[in-house]
Amino acid sequence: FYHNRNPHDLYRILSPFLNCEYGKNTIKFLRLHREGKKQFVKEVEVCAHLRLTSPQEYLEGNNSLVIPTDTIKNIVLVLAKKNGIPSLEQFAIDICNHFMTTFCQVAYVKAYVQEVPWQRLHEDGVPHIHSFICVPDGIRFCEAEQCRNGPLMVFAGIKDLKLMKTTQSGFEGFYKNEHTTLPERHDRILCGELFCKWSYGECKDFDFNCIWKKIRECILEAFAGPPDCGEYSPSYQKTVNCIQMFVLSRVQVIEVVLNNTFYNVVDMKNLGLTNDKEVSKCFKYLTALFRNTQPQSTAAVLYKIK
Amino acid sequence: FYHNRNPHDLYRILSPFLNCEYGKNTIKFLRLHREGKKQFVKEVEVCAHLRLTSPQEYLEGNNSLVIPTDTIKNIVLVLAKKNGIPSLEQFAIDICNHFMTTFCQVAYVKAYVQEVPWQRLHEDGVPHIHSFICVPDGIRFCEAEQCRNGPLMVFAGIKDLKLMKTTQSGFEGFYKNEHTTLPERHDRILCGELFCKWSYGECKDFDFNCIWKKIRECILEAFAGPPDCGEYSPSYQKTVNCIQMFVLSRVQVIEVVLNNTFYNVVDMKNLGLTNDKEVSKCFKYLTALFRNTQPQSTAAVLYKIK
Amino acid sequence: FYHNRNPHDLYRILSPFLNCEYGKNTIKFLRLHREGKKQFVKEVEVCAHLRLTSPQEYLEGNNSLVIPTDTIKNIVLVLAKKNGIPSLEQFAIDICNHFMTTFCQVAYVKAYVQEVPWQRLHEDGVPHIHSFICVPDGIRFCEAEQCRNGPLMVFAGIKDLKLMKTTQSGFEGFYKNEHTTLPERHDRILCGELFCKWSYGECKDFDFNCIWKKIRECILEAFAGPPDCGEYSPSYQKTVNCIQMFVLSRVQVIEVVLNNTFYNVVDMKNLGLTNDKEVSKCFKYLTALFRNTQPQSTAAVLYKIK
Amino acid sequence: FYHNRNPHDLYRILSPFLNCEYGKNTIKFLRLHREGKKQFVKEVEVCAHLRLTSPQEYLEGNNSLVIPTDTIKNIVLVLAKKNGIPSLEQFAIDICNHFMTTFCQVAYVKAYVQEVPWQRLHEDGVPHIHSFICVPDGIRFCEAEQCRNGPLMVFAGIKDLKLMKTTQSGFEGFYKNEHTTLPERHDRILCGELFCKWSYGECKDFDFNCIWKKIRECILEAFAGPPDCGEYSPSYQKTVNCIQMFVLSRVQVIEVVLNNTFYNVVDMKNLGLTNDKEVSKCFKYLTALFRNTQPQSTAAVLYKIK
Repeated sequence: FYHNRNPHDLYRILSPFLNCEYGKNTIKFLRLHREGKKQFVKEVEVCAHLRLTSPQEYLEGNNSLVIPTDTIKNIVLVLAKKNGIPSLEQFAIDICNHFMTTFCQVAYVKAYVQEVPWQRLHEDGVPHIHSFICVPDGIRFCEAEQCRNGPLMVFAGIKDLKLMKTTQSGFEGFYKNEHTTLPERHDRILCGELFCKWSYGECKDFDFNCIWKKIRECILEAFAGPPDCGEYSPSYQKTVNCIQMFVLSRVQVIEVVLNNTFYNVVDMKNLGLTNDKEVSKCFKYLTALFRNTQPQSTAAVLYKIK
Repeated sequence: FYHNRNPHDLYRILSPFLNCEYGKNTIKFLRLHREGKKQFVKEVEVCAHLRLTSPQEYLEGNNSLVIPTDTIKNIVLVLAKKNGIPSLEQFAIDICNHFMTTFCQVAYVKAYVQEVPWQRLHEDGVPHIHSFICVPDGIRFCEAEQCRNGPLMVFAGIKDLKLMKTTQSGFEGFYKNEHTTLPERHDRILCGELFCKWSYGECKDFDFNCIWKKIRECILEAFAGPPDCGEYSPSYQKTVNCIQMFVLSRVQVIEVVLNNTFYNVVDMKNLGLTNDKEVSKCFKYLTALFRNTQPQSTAAVLYKIK
Repeated sequence: FYHNRNPHDLYRILSPFLNCEYGKNTIKFLRLHREGKKQFVKEVEVCAHLRLTSPQEYLEGNNSLVIPTDTIKNIVLVLAKKNGIPSLEQFAIDICNHFMTTFCQVAYVKAYVQEVPWQRLHEDGVPHIHSFICVPDGIRFCEAEQCRNGPLMVFAGIKDLKLMKTTQSGFEGFYKNEHTTLPERHDRILCGELFCKWSYGECKDFDFNCIWKKIRECILEAFAGPPDCGEYSPSYQKTVNCIQMFVLSRVQVIEVVLNNTFYNVVDMKNLGLTNDKEVSKCFKYLTALFRNTQPQSTAAVLYKIK
Repeated sequence: FYHNRNPHDLYRILSPFLNCEYGKNTIKFLRLHREGKKQFVKEVEVCAHLRLTSPQEYLEGNNSLVIPTDTIKNIVLVLAKKNGIPSLEQFAIDICNHFMTTFCQVAYVKAYVQEVPWQRLHEDGVPHIHSFICVPDGIRFCEAEQCRNGPLMVFAGIKDLKLMKTTQSGFEGFYKNEHTTLPERHDRILCGELFCKWSYGECKDFDFNCIWKKIRECILEAFAGPPDCGEYSPSYQKTVNCIQMFVLSRVQVIEVVLNNTFYNVVDMKNLGLTNDKEVSKCFKYLTALFRNTQPQSTAAVLYKIK
């Protein structure tokens, strides 16, 4: 043994503390479905993760319980072939169910499914029977997870949704001290990339496709306010809260992360011009509010009271 | 002088061969425009490049003719403030004109303008007065360039346009030898990312916004074929040609690059299943047909006969 | 009020459940330090996140306790100017201390610091006094966090460390069923990108620079084995465990994520050639083992028994 | 025929103007080589492009001369297996030769080869027999191209080479007018990403590996100046010229692109501090000098006089 340590002693002591998860990320494939001459396409990216009942492959190099990630990939493809993908959420549920019922050595399973945003092409308003265009105006994703003997939990969300309002946003009355240089503003551009994730709890018989579309509309409405006048946002934080409140009537838990992009009005005084907010510059290197590698635990989360 | 070479001798010999271009890339800013309560937004990324009449800053370290890239940036912002951005093309023309008429030391100018695809948000079909969503389904760009005493040339294009047809595509009858392993296919998925760039020649009084939209429709129609049946594509090359032919009636020159994505039908025989093209896997690492760092010179280019 | 819900009622009910974090990511700057003619450079990217004692800015739009992210950025820059960056860890500790002692409305603070890997340039073995080259062979980072009245915890790590061994790796004896198509292999290429993060607990007076270098060497040694023969790895999992065991003698907790890259030996039988592992192809689209958006909670974690 | 145009007429008229290139980009693979117990690895990314003698696949959909990109990929892999990769340049030459001598329908071939920068791992100075680490401090690439009946031309280069000098750089005496806001500076940070490409002409029997290393050293020396004092750079342009002059003694043509990164000294006056260049902020969004989608034609190019 190359390095002078005894893994067997450590094993005995450590096993209760051990948390081993593994799996296959980015299983990317396309599911084609035909109804007569009309064709339907669903391209997805799937991540499937497992925890086993024993960490013996980590500690002892004993692989006998390990389901290879290659097999995980095969199973995901076979399930897509057999069941189709009626909704991302149903497909994630199918994956969890398969692993839990097939492999007794699986202690935990999580399936993440993300959609490539193909939309049917239209020519002069007529839908094309087999042609599609990629329109990434917010990416739909979902997650299902289950511990053995525990409930199957379903989550869904939207990410990479970039929104902007060019007025009805400000930031005033904040805390000030000797390190404050930011001026108060009552009319700024509010722009950001939204990540929203919500929980359906243990519910599995929802019309997931329909609800997702409704929640997306809710988010847009909450961000923008009424089409004829908008609604004043006193801070990024309040806008995040506003989105949460709108969505809470439909689902249990909602988490919202707003990765903001700053636009500063360009100072043109030394160029002999007044600039009444017409020309602004993006300071993308100053991104991020409420953003984290662990958005789940750290971003704003509101629990719905039943 | 640190390294024992004489730059002044080289200068005398080399100057006719010297080709020096410099400039500022990614001048990114947002132009806001108001009509009553309604607001309009145009976010662009501009690159402006110059060549000077003398390369003395390269060879001698004499900066007296150099327009700093910081000044180039200031000029682009000032032009946006003063003129607005009625169309990307008009703005690129304005930039070229400004540099040519203001600085006699400029021998060549090129302006590239690319748009961030903000679309007005709609709530239940009602357009919002000041809210926008980013919808990147093909990025519009243009270029204008001019040598001193030469014509001002205008180009436009679309890039990052991802299209797919799930049938009516094949690849057969190709050249075969001992290194050929590709099977012939008469029903495959055709998917790719389009880059199209065309020339308006010296024309400057076009309705650039209108023509761009028409050409985009042309491209989609040429790729997809009629909505009720499509049109068979015998190769990526023929589809590229087809797009060119469609567009040629409107503009002088058209260049098309199709960066294809391969989808291979997953072989499920060893998993006990037949797979009639329902499940395919993307081999993105095998990208690219007709793609180059110099697409202008190497991709398929068709010149319109006047 | 635009949307018919009452936030004040929700506030009363929800506040115990609320978890609001905000901050500034990617505060990127360069700290220059001079000793006589010799210059030293440290370029870092800092994220600083806060939680406040009250969520009134979320729920009521009352910003009076909010420290703007612009002020957070100013403070980070001022601390760098005043204290320098003797080690990433000390700088992260300084940030936490500043926010905790200056602002009584801060309930929690976290500082993440990541280094741009500039190395002094050498010419024929002679170090240059003021020139540097970027060598990204593993990125150093650290984190410090503190709740009010809680201990200040310090973490450090390395990421984007790409390693490969071309033999002494296999994967055999794994679980098989009808979905298994992976062959057993006793001589494959093992290649991956490592993310390692460990805890120093509450210790603050370590020689962080020295320990980090030692741990990096440990990781390389554990991955590769002895230079003259290597050490056989029966799985990615065992290699991860091996790295953990090596590092555990120095620090409290170690988390290792190995994002593996598959190399498949190209089958050249139908091209009339035997390929004894000389030519392999990278299947990067099949990345990831033990990788997660929440690596902290889900990847392999071993706790050191005191 | 779906769209009412006659391709056959166009064919007759257009064929002299047609420029069709196609090929396979990113053929990524790893070549393993063994000498006793010691193993050597070369991972490369290859692009191989062709032009055919007739564009009939474009215009008529006749594929009979088309060498599928899948076959191109097979050939590249077979050549790697049979010949190994003694140098990137030799491998690119092998590819060109194979296509020219095997296929009479090939009118032009170009091979681009880029290396993944694996370096042998060392433990306490001892080289490991089969373990490697990825160290991307400048990426080596080369290109070979040939027209039928023309000479085979060889190019090589380095890209993504990030260098910085923290003093001995300024920018003064530039052209000023009402749009100038940049102050003159005689002590700034000079930082950028270098792209250098040079030509070996028709020479094929060079020790390409040795020359490449020498030229890399030349570039670093030209950028940095003597290790004990550096050398003053009056502009990015002059530094580019300086690198060209250094390299010109070894090769025929050298093209240098310097994509600079600006560091602005942070103004701390309103924070009550003087900042003598210690703290600077990176304005990466303002990148790019001498950069272009066609670096070949537009950046500074110097031809060596024989």
